[in-house]
Amino acid sequence: MVGGGPGAFIGGSHRIAMRLDDRYQLVAGVFSRDRDKSLAAAREFGISEDRVYPDYETMATREAEREDGVDAVAIVTPTDSHYKIAKRLLEAGLNVICDKPLCLTVAEAKELLTLAEKGGLILCLTHNYSGYAMVRHAARLVRNGSLGEIKIVQVEHASGWAAKLLEKQGHTQAAWRMDPALGGEASVLYDLGTHAHQLARFITGLEISEVAAELSKVVAGRAINDNANLLLRFTNGARGTLWASMAAVGNEHGLRIRVYGDRGSVCWNQEDPHHLLFSPIDGPPQILAQGAEWLSADAARWTRAGLGHPEGFFEAFANLYTEVADALLAKAEGRPVAKAELGFPDASDGVKGVAFVEAAMRSYAAGGVWTALETN
Amino acid sequence: MVGGGPGAFIGGSHRIAMRLDDRYQLVAGVFSRDRDKSLAAAREFGISEDRVYPDYETMATREAEREDGVDAVAIVTPTDSHYKIAKRLLEAGLNVICDKPLCLTVAEAKELLTLAEKGGLILCLTHNYSGYAMVRHAARLVRNGSLGEIKIVQVEHASGWAAKLLEKQGHTQAAWRMDPALGGEASVLYDLGTHAHQLARFITGLEISEVAAELSKVVAGRAINDNANLLLRFTNGARGTLWASMAAVGNEHGLRIRVYGDRGSVCWNQEDPHHLLFSPIDGPPQILAQGAEWLSADAARWTRAGLGHPEGFFEAFANLYTEVADALLAKAEGRPVAKAELGFPDASDGVKGVAFVEAAMRSYAAGGVWTALETN
Amino acid sequence: MVGGGPGAFIGGSHRIAMRLDDRYQLVAGVFSRDRDKSLAAAREFGISEDRVYPDYETMATREAEREDGVDAVAIVTPTDSHYKIAKRLLEAGLNVICDKPLCLTVAEAKELLTLAEKGGLILCLTHNYSGYAMVRHAARLVRNGSLGEIKIVQVEHASGWAAKLLEKQGHTQAAWRMDPALGGEASVLYDLGTHAHQLARFITGLEISEVAAELSKVVAGRAINDNANLLLRFTNGARGTLWASMAAVGNEHGLRIRVYGDRGSVCWNQEDPHHLLFSPIDGPPQILAQGAEWLSADAARWTRAGLGHPEGFFEAFANLYTEVADALLAKAEGRPVAKAELGFPDASDGVKGVAFVEAAMRSYAAGGVWTALETN
Amino acid sequence: MVGGGPGAFIGGSHRIAMRLDDRYQLVAGVFSRDRDKSLAAAREFGISEDRVYPDYETMATREAEREDGVDAVAIVTPTDSHYKIAKRLLEAGLNVICDKPLCLTVAEAKELLTLAEKGGLILCLTHNYSGYAMVRHAARLVRNGSLGEIKIVQVEHASGWAAKLLEKQGHTQAAWRMDPALGGEASVLYDLGTHAHQLARFITGLEISEVAAELSKVVAGRAINDNANLLLRFTNGARGTLWASMAAVGNEHGLRIRVYGDRGSVCWNQEDPHHLLFSPIDGPPQILAQGAEWLSADAARWTRAGLGHPEGFFEAFANLYTEVADALLAKAEGRPVAKAELGFPDASDGVKGVAFVEAAMRSYAAGGVWTALETN
Repeated sequence: MVGGGPGAFIGGSHRIAMRLDDRYQLVAGVFSRDRDKSLAAAREFGISEDRVYPDYETMATREAEREDGVDAVAIVTPTDSHYKIAKRLLEAGLNVICDKPLCLTVAEAKELLTLAEKGGLILCLTHNYSGYAMVRHAARLVRNGSLGEIKIVQVEHASGWAAKLLEKQGHTQAAWRMDPALGGEASVLYDLGTHAHQLARFITGLEISEVAAELSKVVAGRAINDNANLLLRFTNGARGTLWASMAAVGNEHGLRIRVYGDRGSVCWNQEDPHHLLFSPIDGPPQILAQGAEWLSADAARWTRAGLGHPEGFFEAFANLYTEVADALLAKAEGRPVAKAELGFPDASDGVKGVAFVEAAMRSYAAGGVWTALETN
Repeated sequence: MVGGGPGAFIGGSHRIAMRLDDRYQLVAGVFSRDRDKSLAAAREFGISEDRVYPDYETMATREAEREDGVDAVAIVTPTDSHYKIAKRLLEAGLNVICDKPLCLTVAEAKELLTLAEKGGLILCLTHNYSGYAMVRHAARLVRNGSLGEIKIVQVEHASGWAAKLLEKQGHTQAAWRMDPALGGEASVLYDLGTHAHQLARFITGLEISEVAAELSKVVAGRAINDNANLLLRFTNGARGTLWASMAAVGNEHGLRIRVYGDRGSVCWNQEDPHHLLFSPIDGPPQILAQGAEWLSADAARWTRAGLGHPEGFFEAFANLYTEVADALLAKAEGRPVAKAELGFPDASDGVKGVAFVEAAMRSYAAGGVWTALETN
Repeated sequence: MVGGGPGAFIGGSHRIAMRLDDRYQLVAGVFSRDRDKSLAAAREFGISEDRVYPDYETMATREAEREDGVDAVAIVTPTDSHYKIAKRLLEAGLNVICDKPLCLTVAEAKELLTLAEKGGLILCLTHNYSGYAMVRHAARLVRNGSLGEIKIVQVEHASGWAAKLLEKQGHTQAAWRMDPALGGEASVLYDLGTHAHQLARFITGLEISEVAAELSKVVAGRAINDNANLLLRFTNGARGTLWASMAAVGNEHGLRIRVYGDRGSVCWNQEDPHHLLFSPIDGPPQILAQGAEWLSADAARWTRAGLGHPEGFFEAFANLYTEVADALLAKAEGRPVAKAELGFPDASDGVKGVAFVEAAMRSYAAGGVWTALETN
Repeated sequence: MVGGGPGAFIGGSHRIAMRLDDRYQLVAGVFSRDRDKSLAAAREFGISEDRVYPDYETMATREAEREDGVDAVAIVTPTDSHYKIAKRLLEAGLNVICDKPLCLTVAEAKELLTLAEKGGLILCLTHNYSGYAMVRHAARLVRNGSLGEIKIVQVEHASGWAAKLLEKQGHTQAAWRMDPALGGEASVLYDLGTHAHQLARFITGLEISEVAAELSKVVAGRAINDNANLLLRFTNGARGTLWASMAAVGNEHGLRIRVYGDRGSVCWNQEDPHHLLFSPIDGPPQILAQGAEWLSADAARWTRAGLGHPEGFFEAFANLYTEVADALLAKAEGRPVAKAELGFPDASDGVKGVAFVEAAMRSYAAGGVWTALETN
């Protein structure tokens, strides 16, 4: 693991995700740029000192050399460092599990994609919401035709977490996310918009071809725009909107998607993740619950407990990790490792995500005109 | 009443709205262009034959002449005829209660506004959702500062009513609404979009200054676009989106609004109209229920029963009618009749509504560019 | 109308219910024991002075004598007076619409039932919740076998309206309802329990054969018990509970029922009355919405607007009034008037309701033992 | 661990709960009475063969002897074996984490309690729902007086899991739970009722002093009663009901509680576990969400992710395990280990749970009379 020292929320989530299904052991890492902090974290995690490295470059070299070197490295650092770390790890022949977004530019993302492909390496991008059982089921309903042709997609990741001026109130995470130099002018899109974008792609199996974007600022005194509304055009002609916000006061995490086809619709809300509302055109809306006997194998595969035993954020995260473990095992055993129809996001999804942000920012800079996503 | 003969849903709604608080008597009308049907309807409504007129022009003349002539005339015909009927009635000095939208062009709407103003006449536009008690309370929360400065507005009137190709299946109302010649290319905006637009204005007290619009077609074989997604800019700098649809399969009526300020937010859903979710920035979200003791006078004024006794669509409609009755009485008694801070929509709102549709259609025609609403 | 003068909530509800479908005219009444108040009310309602009577006995006599006498009389007085008023009206040959509960003892109730039957008179008991379209649909689902054999019934009318000691705070309605001399020791059962009891009977088509009851007091200083929990046994062997409360703080009106059969279940909540949750054993739970095309004729009959246009408390009340109007018309035209399979509650239901309260009070007095309902 | 071999759902839940916070290592066990199965499970769990024991007696002896013996043993076998296993382990001086219910009789439960107390041993009873952060918060609201004096408790654990005759359809778990010889006549109370009972006690801090019980059978052909409705009396005079069911068709897990005091109420539903509805008497109902800044330390302590990141069944389970780890550590370090005000359930709770079942069965046998819980 690179990053994820004391107090880093997302590092803790990755570690829980590793442990949940008992498919990983955390054995090496660089948990902080501060050596003492890194060692302290390592002790807490039960890692022997000789595998606590001074920097990711050293870790890449040494772990690649070891016979018992790590199977994969998780990158849980701030976004601006993802590219250089992932690049070095891939170049060393190591599989990577990278927090989202993959990086900051399409050029970087494509380079990582190429490195992974050439090296035959796994690069999992932890858009963890793709791991929810009911998201998998929604994606299956689309693919088996239950919704007909997709026509409208309304997706939002509109959180209220930064509805106050936290960055001036000693909130570390807010400080870097709201700093144009660190989180970027497009922080709300990189951080939240890419989750919404990926969720829409994952469920519909469609690409967003063009966006028209409007950004705005909710919290006075903030250095960046903290709110974004986008119109969407999909490759098949479907239309929709995407709303990303850090400052929708009163909202919890605010990730929700509604997909309408000409034969049915689905609605999924991350705050009630074990349910999915499915409305076929010829009958009443149905409440599909995780664990119910009439769900697809895609949902059943990622259900540990069963009906009425809610699985949440960490279980969804763990689902990706466990899928990656399956892929790592297959690779180790020489079996082919193709991208699954409904599997964990990878570098190709990362390219699309960054292209989405870039297109949105170009659209906004140009006054909101329709702008194509470009991955070249 | 003009229109509203047998089978016309909206005419029946107006009549129930009249009766609910016992403030009106229906005494004259032209209920159909077919004289026999008109007379049959009149018999059903208990109206004497001498006040069933062959056409609205005759009714305007005769009722204006009578000493016991009507206090107001309700127009419940298809949209394309509103202008000419309202014009004739206003010219005859009659007060008007007109179904929405007011008419099809800003020019027409302004003419009606001018006629009403010059004549000192009441013209109520039945955007009936403005009549809900909890919508009134939401508007009050905005005005008393509970939400702070408004920053984001997400409003949608996305119905599933025409998710099938009803117009080819003998559905009368669908037939005219989907006919470009009768309902207009912008039917989805005139019919549903103006409700959403009015609701956003009513609650926030703000105007929408610019829109960027995208229209699309959900149902194959339909002559018009049945879906619209818009980006919104408000006069105070707030941003938002508006979604209007006839074909969101699985949705019921689909009218919902969320308004976020920098101090709080409200969420209201017409399918649960007696509740309002209010989230202040410094405390947990609150479920405000119609009839609760801590609501504003604006909500209490329009609550007949009380906590836990749901009032719905017809009560909201009746609220407008009763407000108009109060205004008619004030006028009859020579008291001043100014537009209330939170009162029934009138011709000035009708102008804004039509301007909204026109701006959206211009934006769409121009490829989705930001387009100002013009009321001149 | 007898009762329902100024400030009497329930009288106003009855009058709205009369007007909603335009099937009634209010033409006579005794609106208060205070002649001046009664006349003032009559003026407000537009009733000519000669039909405002000094007392119900006079009204019974005079209206029965008139050729254009009333078709029916609504009784909206406090419970303890229902029996004597209804008796006098029935004896005069007048049809009656009586607020619930019918009266205070089975003996009285049976006498009224007999009078109505012998006289061929209609006596509608306004358990208005039976009028909701989705309650009708629930009853239809039971009768068409969609739930299989009924096994469990959980019903509650647990309101929070009197969670404060209102009767000591100048609250008129609370004062009489909490006074053992006026509302009776069993007020919570007469007032709320009978609604729950009737709702369970109406939907299931079953009778409650035995109860075991526990009463308790929530609000300190109150003269009567304001809370009741009951175990239920039904004629077919089904089991369940009934909870009636005036003092469940935080609850709104709190009327809700869940019925489980061996093939499916339904859940209905009066605070969301236009929806019904139906869970068949072999598929996912379905959200049935008033106005949807797949509902029964029983629901469609009582739907004025349609999908997504909420109808509430007053519409449900009006449904009973309109059903009675149909029955009155049939009677006037000499057509047979049998109790409908799913129609308005009548005196026979009133007998059952009072028997339920009596059994519960006997059970409680005996320490909570199982006690049979007795209607003899 | 004793029990929890392949296919045993609850064993898997315990293992996830151990791992989630990285506070445990599974190092020894008897996973099946079949030695080969036990060894196969051990291999899967990464346990060395020398610590896979032929039976629990051997494990107790050997692990107690080892210097590096286990800190605690989890018992995840069917209920009827809990007593003898727990007894043997406690006698060997081992701490125990036992799945619920503790055992089948009060006599057994008290013996285990005494053994634990005398030995200074920890015995955690995994009523896992007590571990939810929002359940902790509810308990805190009661204790800090936010609800005033508790007056009404409505609790239910009414699942639909066995609404079909699963025990005749090859469903292993159903087979033993529905077998009077194995699961007992009172299976629905032992299995589900004790969870509801414990939840009510945990949140209110009150004991149930008396019950009046009615059992019934939903599924034809079943050997035992699968449904139970109880009236409750609490030590402080509060009243309530408890519903336990295996066969409430359409329900998911069906665990829900509502607690009403004279100053406020709370409602918690295990299917939406990260929310709690709190209704103070002097203001609107509030939606309290896990991770919100205004929650108690009791909730914050058990929140890993934060607002809008749902934590579910496994996290609640893990909370108990982690609390036990804290207690084990304290004990190992010689610090005092007292029962926490709001901490994991222990043997004393197990005694109460079994006393509850026994009282209910006595009440039912006696025709539903009020019956006191007896722990002597």
